Amino acid sequence: MLREHVLHMATEPLEVVRIGFVGLGNRGMATLNRYMVIEGVEVRALCDLDTANLAAAVEVLRKKGKATPELYHGKEEWRTMCERSDIDLIYICTDWLTHTPMALYAMQHGKHVAVEVPAATTVEECWQLVDCAEMTRRHCVMLENCCYDVFHLATFSMVKDGLLGELTHLEGAYIHDLRDKYRADEEQGEGSWMGRLCGRHSGNPYPTHGLGPICQLLDIHRGDKMDYLVSMSPHISSKDVLTPSAYINNTLIKTKKGRSILLQYDVTTPRPYSRMQTVCGTKGFVQKYPRRQILIEGMNMVCGDATETLMHQYTHSQMQAVQQRGEQLQVANIMNYTMDFRLIHCLRKGLPLDMDVYDAAEWSCIAELTEQSVRGGGMPVSIPDFTRGRWDLLDGYEFSYD
Amino acid sequence: MLREHVLHMATEPLEVVRIGFVGLGNRGMATLNRYMVIEGVEVRALCDLDTANLAAAVEVLRKKGKATPELYHGKEEWRTMCERSDIDLIYICTDWLTHTPMALYAMQHGKHVAVEVPAATTVEECWQLVDCAEMTRRHCVMLENCCYDVFHLATFSMVKDGLLGELTHLEGAYIHDLRDKYRADEEQGEGSWMGRLCGRHSGNPYPTHGLGPICQLLDIHRGDKMDYLVSMSPHISSKDVLTPSAYINNTLIKTKKGRSILLQYDVTTPRPYSRMQTVCGTKGFVQKYPRRQILIEGMNMVCGDATETLMHQYTHSQMQAVQQRGEQLQVANIMNYTMDFRLIHCLRKGLPLDMDVYDAAEWSCIAELTEQSVRGGGMPVSIPDFTRGRWDLLDGYEFSYD
Repeated sequence: MLREHVLHMATEPLEVVRIGFVGLGNRGMATLNRYMVIEGVEVRALCDLDTANLAAAVEVLRKKGKATPELYHGKEEWRTMCERSDIDLIYICTDWLTHTPMALYAMQHGKHVAVEVPAATTVEECWQLVDCAEMTRRHCVMLENCCYDVFHLATFSMVKDGLLGELTHLEGAYIHDLRDKYRADEEQGEGSWMGRLCGRHSGNPYPTHGLGPICQLLDIHRGDKMDYLVSMSPHISSKDVLTPSAYINNTLIKTKKGRSILLQYDVTTPRPYSRMQTVCGTKGFVQKYPRRQILIEGMNMVCGDATETLMHQYTHSQMQAVQQRGEQLQVANIMNYTMDFRLIHCLRKGLPLDMDVYDAAEWSCIAELTEQSVRGGGMPVSIPDFTRGRWDLLDGYEFSYD
Repeated sequence: MLREHVLHMATEPLEVVRIGFVGLGNRGMATLNRYMVIEGVEVRALCDLDTANLAAAVEVLRKKGKATPELYHGKEEWRTMCERSDIDLIYICTDWLTHTPMALYAMQHGKHVAVEVPAATTVEECWQLVDCAEMTRRHCVMLENCCYDVFHLATFSMVKDGLLGELTHLEGAYIHDLRDKYRADEEQGEGSWMGRLCGRHSGNPYPTHGLGPICQLLDIHRGDKMDYLVSMSPHISSKDVLTPSAYINNTLIKTKKGRSILLQYDVTTPRPYSRMQTVCGTKGFVQKYPRRQILIEGMNMVCGDATETLMHQYTHSQMQAVQQRGEQLQVANIMNYTMDFRLIHCLRKGLPLDMDVYDAAEWSCIAELTEQSVRGGGMPVSIPDFTRGRWDLLDGYEFSYD
């Protein structure tokens, strides 16, 4: 029997979203702080390995006059938190290896799940997330904040309005010079868990920031599907190279409908930050990095700050309203604010979330598949169909507004 | 018996280089015009299918007070020109499919050969060029003008001076919106031979502009070798797409020493011209397109016009002298002038040329190999060793100055 899918799944509206946070390190604490300005949420519980982190988190809530949540401290206490009946959403900001086990347990206990990138580190874990979401009928959203980048949301509307004609080739990346971070980590001992995980990886361990926005533009599992990939990492022996394995990776992905994707990863070259965000169409070209460029057939090219007007013109009015609200609140990062707002908005309205468990699986699985291709000398590797044949059931990607 | 190689081959110095030009279309005529300011050359013969082209060429020479060369007109007359005993160099600017047959015949008749890109359109032709050059001991240089790009020559010196540390990943491209040209061609009938050849190609039909400078930086067949490639072209069916087959291609190349190369081709997206010229090293990053950026460890990033000073500082003094000479002569394009100057300079001094027949073969063969990979669904394809095992005999790429 074919299990029922969770494509475009809506769940019961929630007047207030009651959240349990697990993981209050750098990203978790930043998230908690961000949630202080999100309406319609209640922080019911906090869980961390470190009591100092919990104390700092409680202080954040106290300063805002919020009720003190239940605290969970210890290696397995997140399970107890997931078992509570007064929580709607488990928000996971832990190390990568615990993402999937926690997400599974939370869904199995009736909770929706919001999990930091990557949702999973293996293809097997990706399938576990999909299976579990389908069985429990719970949301499992990966917190791919780059999907809310202001430039991307404008690009998205331009593409959907047909300004770029038919898309042919797209590029995304995580290019971020992290050498100082890795050096500092190493001086403090054995390095960070993230540095260790990435250092052992021979492909692209961090594909989702580049890939998420691309998949939205290409309607992946909403009319098209990533078919196969080929991947290559340089491997040079040099005393200059911090991580012995992959630190640069290039991956090419072909879709069923014949479009191509270039995905790059580079964390140890001294170069400017970039996610590329490059979109080629038969009638237009849009690029965010290294310099914003928009070229639509029949119009002059628009570059840099001059792109603002065009972007504003094309961003969906409701998305603009969210961005303006973030500006009024003087949030540090509009992209993250938009992600938080949209998640809570959709849960409260009972709308399908902007990203579903198939997105989480499709984007996360690329990490292991690039390793397979690199180890096979660039061999093409098939990309699983996590929808089990339903990748063209939906007609195009959309954000649900009401 | 292993045939003697022509690596770093020097030939007898020539006081004056006596040239026979074949092909006086757009590129050929532009070349003839450029040669009017090159010292130490004599245009002995001209060959074309079209008498009007020949008349225009004679007029160019007449205006400069040069002697009228022998004229060859007709489909096979280039052979007669190659058979003359008073010519040192046959300069080939014909359509792509005639490049190799002409180059072979010229070498077989004792002439050096300068051939426009690509020198060959198949792997088989590449081997023919190598075999013939080794047997006849004649130079066969592909006129890869982008190897003389001012920014590239500066990058080259920075790399050789160790400023970028060890190179890890390089990128090159031919991104040139040729849609208007193709449309105009089609309106005039069956289109241009170049448009037809590229339109039928399923991979990257024009790899050398991007690849040449990269191979110089990576010391290809002077210490490293291109090992294998994987290639991908989008294929979408759309009324917007002019050429039915490849119009965009992405190729990844791995070298024996473990470095990676990204090579792009795109002639039908409305986007700015780019050859990328991107170089990642363990201690630095250099990029020409879309905006010049130089970031060397321990220095602030330098962008745009501000890169001039740094580039000037690092360009080899003799190469700078050539560039300055070109500026004094007010040539239209310093890159082409430098190519012309260097070719004639080396032939007159009896120095090894900047590029040899192995370069011509290695760079040209990529076109067919990308097709093989694309047709095989991204399968890795081995890159032939045209040096027959001698790719690390020479110790690094160098320009010979005296």
